[in-house]
Order: sequence, then C-alpha cells, then structure tokens
Amino acid sequence: MRYKLYYWPEIQGRGEFVRLALAEADADYIDVARSKSGMRAMERMMASSRRPPFAPPFLQAGRLLIGQTANILLYLGEREGLAPREAAARLWVHQLQLTLADFIVEIHDTHHPIAASLYFEDQRAEAKRRSKSFLAERAPKFLGYFERVLRNSGGPFLLGRRLTYADLSLFQVIEGLRYAFPRAMRGALRRHPRCVALHERVAARPRIAAYLASPARLAFNEMGIFRHYRELDRG
Amino acid sequence: MRYKLYYWPEIQGRGEFVRLALAEADADYIDVARSKSGMRAMERMMASSRRPPFAPPFLQAGRLLIGQTANILLYLGEREGLAPREAAARLWVHQLQLTLADFIVEIHDTHHPIAASLYFEDQRAEAKRRSKSFLAERAPKFLGYFERVLRNSGGPFLLGRRLTYADLSLFQVIEGLRYAFPRAMRGALRRHPRCVALHERVAARPRIAAYLASPARLAFNEMGIFRHYRELDRG
Repeated sequence: MRYKLYYWPEIQGRGEFVRLALAEADADYIDVARSKSGMRAMERMMASSRRPPFAPPFLQAGRLLIGQTANILLYLGEREGLAPREAAARLWVHQLQLTLADFIVEIHDTHHPIAASLYFEDQRAEAKRRSKSFLAERAPKFLGYFERVLRNSGGPFLLGRRLTYADLSLFQVIEGLRYAFPRAMRGALRRHPRCVALHERVAARPRIAAYLASPARLAFNEMGIFRHYRELDRG
Repeated sequence: MRYKLYYWPEIQGRGEFVRLALAEADADYIDVARSKSGMRAMERMMASSRRPPFAPPFLQAGRLLIGQTANILLYLGEREGLAPREAAARLWVHQLQLTLADFIVEIHDTHHPIAASLYFEDQRAEAKRRSKSFLAERAPKFLGYFERVLRNSGGPFLLGRRLTYADLSLFQVIEGLRYAFPRAMRGALRRHPRCVALHERVAARPRIAAYLASPARLAFNEMGIFRHYRELDRG
C-alpha cells in the first residue's frame, strides 16, 4: 500500500516527524501537496471528509484518514515496526511523543507568543520575553527530562536498545533547536550528552542519512516551527 | 482494580479530563494528592519512576504508570468502554482528543502567553493581546470544527449515538470557556448549537451529574487552565 501524506509543501513543520518515520520504515509514500494539483487535493480532503482533520499533517492509508502528528505516529509505529508490540511499552512511547508535542508547541511559541496569524515583527518584543524564559526554564526542563529517560533506559534510545518513532522525533527536535538557537544550544546540549548521542545515532542510520541528503528533505526556514532569529538566541 | 490518579489537589486542570472519564465509567479510584501524604507520594513517584511522567496528571493502574492526559484517556477508553472497539474509530476519537488538547493549550496561554512561571499580572498586556486574537480567530476555529464533526456524525455525540471520552472532554472545555469568558461565549456559543447540546447531554448523564454535584468536583479558580479575568473577556 502506498501512503499519502498531506502537508504544507514549503516547510518541515509537523509533517517532518511523519516523514522521518516513513523514511526509517522505508515505506512507499507520496507527499501529495508538493505538486500544484496536490495542494488542491489537500484542501478538498479537509473540506469534504466526513471525519475531517483539524489541520495538516494527515495521512491516508487505504480507506483510513488519520490526523494529528502523534496519532499518525501511533498508527505507523504499530504498522511499520517503529513501536514495541507490548501494550505498556507502546503507551510509554506514545507518552514520550506527546511530551515532545508539548515541547514543540513551546518552541513554536517562542517566535509567535501572541498569535500565529500575526507576523513575527508584530510580536517581536513579546517573542524576546518568551524566548528568554523558554531558554532559561523550559528547554532545560524538557531536555533534562529526556536525558533522564535515556539514562534510565540505558540508551542509546529512549526505550533502550530498540529505536522507536519517538527517537526520530527527538532527533528532529534537537536538529531544530540547534538551527533556531545555535548560541544557546551550544551550552545547553553540553549538559545533555545522551540527547546529543541519540541525535548522532539517528542521523547515522542509513535510511535517515539517505533521506536527509535527498531533495525530499526541505531546509529549515523562517516559516516553520524552528526559526532562527538572532535576537531570540541568547547563549 | 482501584486506579490511583495523581494530580495537583487545588485545581481541575488537566486532571479533570481524567476524573470525568473515571466518573462516567463508575470506576473505583483514589485521588492520591488530595491528602498531605499524597502530595509526597506524587513527588516520590515523579522522582523515582523508571519511566517517569513529565508532569501530572498520571494514572497508576496495577503495575502500569501512564502519563499525558490524552494517553491516559486512550488507555481508559479501551478498558472502561469509553471508546469504540474498531481500530479506525478508536484512532479518530484519539485524534479528536489531541485536537482538544491543542485547544486547551491555547486557552491556557490566553492568560499566560509569556511564561507559566510568571504571574498573570506580569504578562497582563500580552495576555490582552493574545486573548483578543484567541476570541476573534482561534476559539471560533476550534468550536466551528467540533460543530462540523457533530453535524457529520449526526449527533448527539462526536461519534454519533455513542458517548466517548472525547465528548466528556468537549463538555469540560465548553464549561471552562463559559467560566473564563462569559461575555464572549454568550455570542460565540449561540453560533455552535450542537456543541451546546452536547454539553447539556453530558451534564445530564446520571453519573456525571452526581460527580459534578459532589465535593470531588473542585470549583474553577484563578490557578487552573480556565481563569476568569474580566479584562480578557470581550463580548
């Protein structure tokens, strides 16, 4: 079966967490909205579906239409061997993914604390205040949490020796944080060596490495979740 | 089996979405942290668990420890008959819950757009700006989405004739929005009659009505997710 992924064509965004899982699983998929007619197909899907997604990304798998990034990964994890079979461990991996989802909202809101509909320039002062508290309190709290999970698991992955979709997402979060806050992350990541090691392990996996080097991998930019504004990056 | 729910004792917060599910299921549970020794037990759990939750609420079910509200509901839904058995429908209900979780973050951030660690008074100007855009754009978008889902399902519930945990959560969101923004919601909810009807249906269920009238139901206050500040409530 060929999956169809629907997501905005110009950003990594939340779609990237799904793309990384599809790449690691070597799954057959089309990134629908990257063609012009694809954007129309995506809008049609959202407008006409009986069980409509609130927003992209969403995944079509045969007759199934699945929205919400963590929910898509819950489905793919089970189907594509990126999650453990045992029920307790599967819930735990999903719990980690939902914690990453919370982290991602806070990362996004560093540059958009007032409204996603306004430009960054229209909420620059607020973004500075929010980023300061994010870098001082929230990023260390989340990174410290994942560092602790990796210590408990024995590593190199969140569950131990076996990679799951949550590891791919943590890789992407670290990659994005380094892009957005290069100065601040130099120091912060030194205090979280297990997170850094996981990032390296994921990046070196053959299918992930091939995907990252391919044109399918979009570059980070100032339209996505992870944006680099020097004034928000305090070291 | 007696469940143990761990959550802050002084607020409804995210714990309330779990309490409503436990009430509807007539499940046997203890609200651990509502006793003094319980708060210490909660801290101990967070500090010493091999698979620690990032934050309350978390639920102990026998040997399982489950964190993240939507994940707890995924588990309880299946175990307590508050979710459909069919895989596609179960994913759909979880998708709706995750969309409600996104809505809840945005509701919280109306009064805390800069940092959860700062007082409201220290981010009052930013809160006014964020609330204005929330009430003008985001609340109508989320409410309109759930209204559409209810229209498509034929109602009275999100899945149709059968109640699921997502209905209980939508009830709580509407209850909370009315508390936080009484003026703005008078108008907004008039445009979403199916959401209002669902709220009434849930409130009238015998176990929910009994729970809401009991001392176990805390009152809304200015420490939780839904807070009433007149200056943020524009009609």
